[in-house]
Amino acid sequence: MRQILSLALAASLLTVASVQAKPKPAPTPPARPDPVATATGLRDRALSDATGMSVLESLTSEIGPRPAGSPAAERARDWGIAKLKALGFTNVHAEPFAKPSWQRGEESAEITAPYPFKLSVLGLGGTIATPAGGLEGDAVVFHTIAELRAVADGSLTGKIVVLNMPMVRTQDGSGYGVAVQSRYLGSTVARKGAVAYLLRSVSTSQSRQPHAGAMRYDAGGPQIPVAALGVPDANLIDRLSTRGPVHIRLKLANTTHADTMAWNVVGDIVGSEKSDEVIVIGGHLDSWDPGTGAIDDGAGVAITTAAATLIGQLPRHPRRTIRVVMWGSEETGGAGEAFYAAHKDELGKIIVAGESDLGSDDIYSLQVPKGSYSNPVMMQAASVLAPLKIMTISEAAKNAGSDVEEIQGAGAPVFSLNQDASRYFDLHHSADDTFEAVDPVKFNRNVAAWAALVYLIADSDIDFRALGAK
Amino acid sequence: MRQILSLALAASLLTVASVQAKPKPAPTPPARPDPVATATGLRDRALSDATGMSVLESLTSEIGPRPAGSPAAERARDWGIAKLKALGFTNVHAEPFAKPSWQRGEESAEITAPYPFKLSVLGLGGTIATPAGGLEGDAVVFHTIAELRAVADGSLTGKIVVLNMPMVRTQDGSGYGVAVQSRYLGSTVARKGAVAYLLRSVSTSQSRQPHAGAMRYDAGGPQIPVAALGVPDANLIDRLSTRGPVHIRLKLANTTHADTMAWNVVGDIVGSEKSDEVIVIGGHLDSWDPGTGAIDDGAGVAITTAAATLIGQLPRHPRRTIRVVMWGSEETGGAGEAFYAAHKDELGKIIVAGESDLGSDDIYSLQVPKGSYSNPVMMQAASVLAPLKIMTISEAAKNAGSDVEEIQGAGAPVFSLNQDASRYFDLHHSADDTFEAVDPVKFNRNVAAWAALVYLIADSDIDFRALGAK
Repeated sequence: MRQILSLALAASLLTVASVQAKPKPAPTPPARPDPVATATGLRDRALSDATGMSVLESLTSEIGPRPAGSPAAERARDWGIAKLKALGFTNVHAEPFAKPSWQRGEESAEITAPYPFKLSVLGLGGTIATPAGGLEGDAVVFHTIAELRAVADGSLTGKIVVLNMPMVRTQDGSGYGVAVQSRYLGSTVARKGAVAYLLRSVSTSQSRQPHAGAMRYDAGGPQIPVAALGVPDANLIDRLSTRGPVHIRLKLANTTHADTMAWNVVGDIVGSEKSDEVIVIGGHLDSWDPGTGAIDDGAGVAITTAAATLIGQLPRHPRRTIRVVMWGSEETGGAGEAFYAAHKDELGKIIVAGESDLGSDDIYSLQVPKGSYSNPVMMQAASVLAPLKIMTISEAAKNAGSDVEEIQGAGAPVFSLNQDASRYFDLHHSADDTFEAVDPVKFNRNVAAWAALVYLIADSDIDFRALGAK
Repeated sequence: MRQILSLALAASLLTVASVQAKPKPAPTPPARPDPVATATGLRDRALSDATGMSVLESLTSEIGPRPAGSPAAERARDWGIAKLKALGFTNVHAEPFAKPSWQRGEESAEITAPYPFKLSVLGLGGTIATPAGGLEGDAVVFHTIAELRAVADGSLTGKIVVLNMPMVRTQDGSGYGVAVQSRYLGSTVARKGAVAYLLRSVSTSQSRQPHAGAMRYDAGGPQIPVAALGVPDANLIDRLSTRGPVHIRLKLANTTHADTMAWNVVGDIVGSEKSDEVIVIGGHLDSWDPGTGAIDDGAGVAITTAAATLIGQLPRHPRRTIRVVMWGSEETGGAGEAFYAAHKDELGKIIVAGESDLGSDDIYSLQVPKGSYSNPVMMQAASVLAPLKIMTISEAAKNAGSDVEEIQGAGAPVFSLNQDASRYFDLHHSADDTFEAVDPVKFNRNVAAWAALVYLIADSDIDFRALGAK
């Protein structure tokens, strides 16, 4: 009882003290606006707002390609900090982490017989170099991974293995998951006795542009040079090999650097009531080197930055904080781990996380965090997104982007705004990933969806962890 | 009267003589089949016939790129002769002509400031080389030829001119005629004082692949290196130049060869009645070097060869001869002139000529030779082509391909099967002009149209010269 009386007394004293501290009537704080109306307004404003495309144009023009560990990645870090500050973000900073890097050198590949033909080629990220004078061998062509695995170890001594396995075009990008396995067969092919492994680019296009990408050797496994061919180049070797021997010469002069750094660039739109509760969104700032990283992933950086900027321009910020992260090493890994390591003590305050990393074509579905499909706020979100032709589906988000995998694994809820990937793998990781590849209308529909959804979550009390635990 | 009697007598005697020379009844010669039924049958057979695509696959796989004057052009000549013989053509031979050639060497271009960026570049055919160590200068960007012409001579000393003039996509390809003028400004730019001239590729695509092509300096005019940039590369320089100086380095190590040869490869499907009357059709065997010359112009070679092959496989050849020509130097000129020079004495026997040189997408209209629109045979042709969605238009053919311009100028009638060029200039002259760029269904519709039309003309008595003279 005493305790209760004391608390009541304390409360009344506090009230008095509060009144005494405000001799004049306080100015009426802006009434909390209707969240659905605000989200709808954000959505519609985003459709004609120039912020996002301007951010993307700036990044792709002023920085260009920016692989983790390259000098350009440092310029990208400075660009990100300056851009977030200029757009009104607070708490803007870079979070450094060690990131050994692989850097491309001079590369060439050619058919030398039956006639000389210069091949389009890109060494995969992580491959060893060839001897300085290059290497050569007759091509042996395979069409599936299973076919390649089936040949006996040591049976392809001195050969250059060419895997001409097409990638299937799918709306949800699932063809990539199947085809990308071809990039990880360096040790497998080495065990067959081959001197090099050339794979058809993991690509849905028929362009000669090869597609870069990461590869890995088996731990402790044998290593041979691994490079991607332009799709028609792989087909040409395939067709020629039905007629007779095809002799190939390959040179890769890449280097690795053990002591390079990378940075996740972070900035906040601080919440108006619960600023310690954080919605984490973003894209990745690093890119592959052949293009200027517009769809992968300048778009994701620009879409999420623009969405948060628009929210930050509201007369009243939503209750919770929105944190934009420009992850600094997605392509070769490390950024998500670094972000987790830097924030693991605040993990419980991450309300939800999402990443935009599949270009800028239309979003066609929303997957909400586990257990929240019937939550009133998420149902409101579904209504606001529906006119953008985004369906909210009952299956909860599973994968929200590789940079949030680590915090997701540690318990952070995630959502996923699923983009149409039909065209994405024509371009990604290739020289054709440029500003020109982005459709501004579709891009802005992405900004609209991110702004509306993130606002509704940030202005709510929704507790995804509790809903997911039910 | 005498004379008349004498003729009647002679005729009766001849009849007697004829009967006397055939003691046994002659075997019935195959009745001349209905031409429309035959043309319709050819059309329909072509749609599922593999000859054309097989010819194209063979050329692009076995020979690859084949610029006039290159060693590959000799292999292409031998390929053409062997292929025509194998397909049953007669009178197969190569007609040689002198063809000085330009050959690409090592090439590179890069932005060195504000940050290093490797540009996609191709020297234009005919450009001078840079000094061995390359050259450099600040970029000055123009957007139209008029804008460029308007600056004073000598006012761009030491600069590198970048013309970022887009090519407009049109169904009839007319955007090319406008944009291609940008390739011929080397001397104009040199007079402004610039050290090099870089133009946005004459292309409707947004690929980084540059598009090659011929250029010429003004006769006696000043000369500077001229090269084409990938479209996004020109845009990037353009966008960067709005922010500050853009410094560019260029190296071109091409060479010219005065004593090289080229060949027009010729083969006939000999007519069954009037073998000296000739319908000339074909495509050009030479190609630019970045791709494998599939749409430009392996397709034209393969379409016309396949059409004539199908006609040659009929139980009875049409009355007139069909001559397929694989012209040996269209891209840098000379083949049409050489063909004219070799055949000028037989020009009166060329009934009509046509060339397929705009890829292999659908033909959408037929333009017949002047004066023949209402001719019954051409009206039959219009009916046979209509189900392929080809409209026959009243405007007579004006331009039937650059390899037949010379004989056209000397009086040979021409027709034109106009192809949809909407997609053609995305690819032509670039590394992406490969076998993969060809749609086999559309390709076969081309073969069908050529086979049906050429058969009807070849089996007729139609005299286009007489009709055109009316």
